[in-house]
Amino acid sequence: MKIAVLGTGMVGHALAGKLVSLGHEVTMGSREPGNPKGLAWAEDAGGLGHAGSFSQAAAGAELVVNATPGAVSLAALAEAGEANLDGKVLLDVSNGLDNSSGFPPTLTVCNTDSIAETIQRTYPGVRVVKSLNTVSAPVMVEPGRLPGAHHIFMAGNDAGAKATVSALLQAFGWPQEHIRDLGGLDAARGMEMWLPLWLRIFMQQPQGKMFNIGIVSE
Amino acid sequence: MKIAVLGTGMVGHALAGKLVSLGHEVTMGSREPGNPKGLAWAEDAGGLGHAGSFSQAAAGAELVVNATPGAVSLAALAEAGEANLDGKVLLDVSNGLDNSSGFPPTLTVCNTDSIAETIQRTYPGVRVVKSLNTVSAPVMVEPGRLPGAHHIFMAGNDAGAKATVSALLQAFGWPQEHIRDLGGLDAARGMEMWLPLWLRIFMQQPQGKMFNIGIVSE
Repeated sequence: MKIAVLGTGMVGHALAGKLVSLGHEVTMGSREPGNPKGLAWAEDAGGLGHAGSFSQAAAGAELVVNATPGAVSLAALAEAGEANLDGKVLLDVSNGLDNSSGFPPTLTVCNTDSIAETIQRTYPGVRVVKSLNTVSAPVMVEPGRLPGAHHIFMAGNDAGAKATVSALLQAFGWPQEHIRDLGGLDAARGMEMWLPLWLRIFMQQPQGKMFNIGIVSE
Repeated sequence: MKIAVLGTGMVGHALAGKLVSLGHEVTMGSREPGNPKGLAWAEDAGGLGHAGSFSQAAAGAELVVNATPGAVSLAALAEAGEANLDGKVLLDVSNGLDNSSGFPPTLTVCNTDSIAETIQRTYPGVRVVKSLNTVSAPVMVEPGRLPGAHHIFMAGNDAGAKATVSALLQAFGWPQEHIRDLGGLDAARGMEMWLPLWLRIFMQQPQGKMFNIGIVSE
């Protein structure tokens, strides 16, 4: 599949690298087409890896991954261009963190709205699926590094788009039974509001020890 | 210990019943001292169970449990009376749910504040500890009903108050190693913001199957 990964941060790198390793053709998109992080990644990634502007990345893609920070995702998608996004599956892995008051950050949007819903409202023709935002980048693409059962969530209004994302998650190593479809895209509110608790658990974790949550049920 | 449980709902009943079974003397507090739910509970509970107004309950207590809905907790505590709360440990298990727009509810307070912090600000002399709000009432008092490791959180500014609450949680059946102290009371924001995701998972659970989250770590 031809995939655009928008964003050149840790999350963008983890996802783009994994997708190339799975045989997909990936363009890492950034604000400036000559972004050195994007170019360096593409060079390392070999023949399946490319770098370009948000617009160049999205134009050729069948699936678009939003790995930009949630606070700037709408601006990044505006640069990608509505015509380059329309009708496509957009996997939104972002968190809208407001770092203006220091650490830990607050959220730019929450409670009655979510980053995912703002994207969906702005681009009604895009098939937005929220997922993966509840775990750190290394866990997203290698869930098996954590021992035992742990879960990943998914929300979206388009069943076909969720099936596409579910297949991708399974290719990343998430067992189907650990993928929880929480329903419509408004469920992204809860997924994004998980971040403040994630951050507090993270602050108590032994340094560098990745974690996730498993649902323990009767 | 003499304990006030403020609130006559499912959570109040679960906590008051468990505390009596552990040998504590419990007064279930409600707005009206003649509240039939409080009186019925006290009659069932035997010699260690009493019912009264919020004020009567708090007056005689060494420890106060806020099991009222978060949206009305400040009003309930005002009726309890500052003099009856001052210097005491207050275990806040509430969630501030706004049901005015239907189900699932939104939160009355979040992101830059929490119910627990509003209580602490209103009563600086009270030693507020947030805990137990992340699980349903039956799980609060019987964590062993879920198979395998799962966790409960705690936040507060007073180490001695957290030690008291931790001892109580352990008496409820929470193993010490599954109690995560997340630090100061501002960590209650994350604990309260977990609710929207909890609700979405709850909506997908098989009917009546209790659950909680376990932290799965490297």
